[in-house]
Amino acid sequence: MTKNKKVNAAILIIGNEILSGRTQDTNTTTIALWLNSIGVKVQEVRVIPDIENTIIETVNHLRKTSDYVFTTGGIGPTHDDITAQSISKAFGIKYEIHKEAYKILEAYYKPGEFNEGRQKMVWMPKNANLILNPTSGAPGFNVDNVFCLPGVPSILKSMLGGLKNLIAGGDPILSHTISLRTVESEIANSLTKVQDDNLDVEIGSYPFFQAGKLGVSIVIRSEDQSKIDNCNSQILKFVNEKKIEVVDR
Amino acid sequence: MTKNKKVNAAILIIGNEILSGRTQDTNTTTIALWLNSIGVKVQEVRVIPDIENTIIETVNHLRKTSDYVFTTGGIGPTHDDITAQSISKAFGIKYEIHKEAYKILEAYYKPGEFNEGRQKMVWMPKNANLILNPTSGAPGFNVDNVFCLPGVPSILKSMLGGLKNLIAGGDPILSHTISLRTVESEIANSLTKVQDDNLDVEIGSYPFFQAGKLGVSIVIRSEDQSKIDNCNSQILKFVNEKKIEVVDR
Repeated sequence: MTKNKKVNAAILIIGNEILSGRTQDTNTTTIALWLNSIGVKVQEVRVIPDIENTIIETVNHLRKTSDYVFTTGGIGPTHDDITAQSISKAFGIKYEIHKEAYKILEAYYKPGEFNEGRQKMVWMPKNANLILNPTSGAPGFNVDNVFCLPGVPSILKSMLGGLKNLIAGGDPILSHTISLRTVESEIANSLTKVQDDNLDVEIGSYPFFQAGKLGVSIVIRSEDQSKIDNCNSQILKFVNEKKIEVVDR
Repeated sequence: MTKNKKVNAAILIIGNEILSGRTQDTNTTTIALWLNSIGVKVQEVRVIPDIENTIIETVNHLRKTSDYVFTTGGIGPTHDDITAQSISKAFGIKYEIHKEAYKILEAYYKPGEFNEGRQKMVWMPKNANLILNPTSGAPGFNVDNVFCLPGVPSILKSMLGGLKNLIAGGDPILSHTISLRTVESEIANSLTKVQDDNLDVEIGSYPFFQAGKLGVSIVIRSEDQSKIDNCNSQILKFVNEKKIEVVDR
């Protein structure tokens, strides 16, 4: 692994149910936390409807602007599951029965249960790499830098582990949080100075409300622990001067 | 209101904390459900980092492709709150102290508490319309078809009601859900036929797992109740033929 290598990703959530507010997306958080742990930073998330042209255009944009693209949703057996055919068209690759996926699902279901609906789930872009599904059989797939995962959160979670060897991450993104019994406006100027002195470190400020009291969490993120430590010292210096209490969260 | 008028919106979530997975976004669901109720359909959601150029470019794209744009986050007092200045640049409008917002916050805080950090929150695009904040004082703002709201979910929720008169919605988007004790593959073909017969109705199929049992919810969405009723009848017809149990959810 090269030192200070930065690797980024985009997440593409495909599904009318998220846009209508019917379903609360949690896959973004799951994927983002997992990617952080292997040194990949999410730089953009998009949520789009189950419309073929929209999927094609968005995938073709994101796969050029990001090192990796992760899609969720649209790989089940029903009419609104159009991710696999859309990805095939995005890459100009034939959409066909994937023999390995067929064998997996044929073995997974009881005799007679591998019906026409389920057989739809083995149609994929030709020669796609499979992403195995330890929960419910039907695999996801990977073409070039695009990884297609299901929308059901528990199934998606169970498939991430199997992806690790396919992703070349950069340096892990480290973070440190300092939680304070204060409000943002009390520390805004001092924190701005720390950020201005450390432009290559990401410093975020997030108000919280816990057990009836207001507070602010400051989150410092970088690939370099010494830079985090340096910011931490500068922040604790003004926190002490202002006699602000540091709290556990 | 014109009949069959379709009005759409984009939601732009601004914040590194969502992209890093540290914070679970819930504002998308809140805004989408509220927009549905006033006849506005969310057609796209993007999550982007606290980077000025990214905010400018994304806002300038979305405000042309959607009837309305709702941004969340980045309007607080700290250095990473850069939404107001970015929106000013996106529109080429002067970024300055908003006199009305200044008066509101001056009255909101106790004497001496309206400090420099808090005063940052009254800098806005010149002549922006204010979006009042019944929870914590600091208003959001509106320029043209772009509405800028805070990131804290409870505060955002309290501000939506005040927006209603600023948004011209279309026909409300109606929906009907049929939950079935089955799996998607059993109904996929029949459901495809109903969708093919009703191309202007949105029919989604969503597996669920409840009380130890698998099921599928079919969601029918349209502005026209008679089209929903028609799809509903067609679906119940094949459900009865297949002897599938309809369940409450």
